[in-house]
Amino acid sequence: MKEGLGENSYASNSLLARKVISMSKPLIEEAITELYKNMVPKTVCIADLGCSAGPNTLFAASEVVRIVGKLCQELEHQAALDFQIYLNDLPGNDFNSLFRVFLPRFQSELRQEMGPGFGQCFVYGAPGSFYGRLFPAKSLHFVHSSSSLMWLSKVPEGAEMNKDNIYMARTSPRSVIDAYYEQFRRDLSTFLRYRAEEVVGGGRMVLSMFGRKSEEASSEEGCYAWELLAMAIKEMVNEGLIKENKLHTFHIPQYSPSPAEVATEVVKEGSFALNTVEAKEIMWAECSNNSSYSDKAYYMAKCMRSVAEPLLVEQFGEVVIDELFEKYRRILSSRMYHEDDNKSVIVVVSMTRRD
Amino acid sequence: MKEGLGENSYASNSLLARKVISMSKPLIEEAITELYKNMVPKTVCIADLGCSAGPNTLFAASEVVRIVGKLCQELEHQAALDFQIYLNDLPGNDFNSLFRVFLPRFQSELRQEMGPGFGQCFVYGAPGSFYGRLFPAKSLHFVHSSSSLMWLSKVPEGAEMNKDNIYMARTSPRSVIDAYYEQFRRDLSTFLRYRAEEVVGGGRMVLSMFGRKSEEASSEEGCYAWELLAMAIKEMVNEGLIKENKLHTFHIPQYSPSPAEVATEVVKEGSFALNTVEAKEIMWAECSNNSSYSDKAYYMAKCMRSVAEPLLVEQFGEVVIDELFEKYRRILSSRMYHEDDNKSVIVVVSMTRRD
Repeated sequence: MKEGLGENSYASNSLLARKVISMSKPLIEEAITELYKNMVPKTVCIADLGCSAGPNTLFAASEVVRIVGKLCQELEHQAALDFQIYLNDLPGNDFNSLFRVFLPRFQSELRQEMGPGFGQCFVYGAPGSFYGRLFPAKSLHFVHSSSSLMWLSKVPEGAEMNKDNIYMARTSPRSVIDAYYEQFRRDLSTFLRYRAEEVVGGGRMVLSMFGRKSEEASSEEGCYAWELLAMAIKEMVNEGLIKENKLHTFHIPQYSPSPAEVATEVVKEGSFALNTVEAKEIMWAECSNNSSYSDKAYYMAKCMRSVAEPLLVEQFGEVVIDELFEKYRRILSSRMYHEDDNKSVIVVVSMTRRD
Repeated sequence: MKEGLGENSYASNSLLARKVISMSKPLIEEAITELYKNMVPKTVCIADLGCSAGPNTLFAASEVVRIVGKLCQELEHQAALDFQIYLNDLPGNDFNSLFRVFLPRFQSELRQEMGPGFGQCFVYGAPGSFYGRLFPAKSLHFVHSSSSLMWLSKVPEGAEMNKDNIYMARTSPRSVIDAYYEQFRRDLSTFLRYRAEEVVGGGRMVLSMFGRKSEEASSEEGCYAWELLAMAIKEMVNEGLIKENKLHTFHIPQYSPSPAEVATEVVKEGSFALNTVEAKEIMWAECSNNSSYSDKAYYMAKCMRSVAEPLLVEQFGEVVIDELFEKYRRILSSRMYHEDDNKSVIVVVSMTRRD
């Protein structure tokens, strides 16, 4: 994610990510309600994994606090309840902006809304990869992760055969598709194994990630945004602005799973009971307040830039970035007339830690 | 503290702070040993309050882990032990450097030293003021704070009478000295009250702060470094480079307590049993590898700069800083021949949470 608070930063371009979190709200509400009624903990421990640093970072956490607050009123629980909220992301995440800008906003909003006597929210930064252990055994009640688990722990071995593509595409060799899927399966099962250690019996997880509806891994819906970005890079290769070898060795470490693929890993790992898994569509156009197609394309290009820029800079250098995203915006704008091209699919899954 | 990793940053000028932590090492060892033998916790929860962001930030934490590791060996405890280490400082602290630079070093050093099977260290950032609540009730085993508690929560009311001084000095009105002391008492008792809620019965605290031996609050030993800095500012006022009004309204929110003053607050608050309180001297010269007086003065000026620069920039503006510290270095250099002037006093206190 692009650091800081500038025009191209993640923090300024995260309406899409907020939309994704909103989509899992009903599942969060169901999970928290059941969890609270069953356990009535004195301190509710929450982790948001892959939280990034933007206005959305504390969005899920504030939902949880609100839901529990309402429950306490309904159930006429008098005792003040505390929350421990752990915000996790890689150490490269911009925790400074998170702590200086977004945390104070969250705290003052919550104070206003919940009133005095509600208890306290203790918020911590938890730097590290969620493909490793992050918390002591049986220490978490609720784990949330949004728009993060499609990121793999590394580029899959075998992706180097995917020369002209930067991600899985219809023209990718079968071996490449298999390598991506294999890496995803390994990563998700690692993730589940570690979370199984950390979450208390009866604890809940609600995870959402970019994915697909189709069972075909290289189907357009999961790969479209990257395919168009590859087109923009190819244009620059043709114009001699990017070396072909740089394109051939660039691979996005992501996988967009189907609901069935996610369900399979949850069931196979076995520590969590699967409650729901579903695929939801999100229209890109809904994430922009602008009405014209070119404005929407501008917004989407900025949105992708805020996510992908660090990877692209590392591979292609700083100088090509502005032109690359200008080309990308143009390509997006010419494609956005086709309704079907203009959506992403979100896979949302809810599960309960077995006792 | 000055952010980042540059020449004038806190991170690059923290040898004095490390020396201070070293001084409390025997007390840390005693506290941790007793705590571990009495409680044998499965997860040891530690907080370092006012941790800053430099090579010292994880110094105390690694001491604790080492001590517990040795104890486990001696007592032939087999079960893997986990640590939760909370690093606290104000949200303005440079947590990004801490997580990206100093945390990985700590983790790899510990892995090498402790070997596999030792358990895990989970490290979190805990942004906020330690004059407020930071942790859930009864959640901490050990609290450490070094070189931080002499910072007051605010400039004392009444300090505005301290016109030509930036800190308590022999020429300060009595009312100013009283106002500083009153603020310190209030802040320390707030600190103790909140920690009493957070620390488990039998849990320990080892705190060290800059202080003084004398019972006279304006005695040189506690105030000397600031007095010389005030001299440098006055020179610049005389040269017309700083407006006199700016000097008159600048007050350092610090108090250097005597051991008795600290002990009084601990006893009065009552939640902690006082084990030891002592004053130790630290020679500035020992904190520099350079041998000549002017080199030492250069080091000390840099050291003070790394601590005070943000406050000074806020009051006097960026442009005067280089010259101010050049003057300060000259003043320090001319004073460093007098052995007695070249030391600071550290007050170290150890206490146990009553059950």
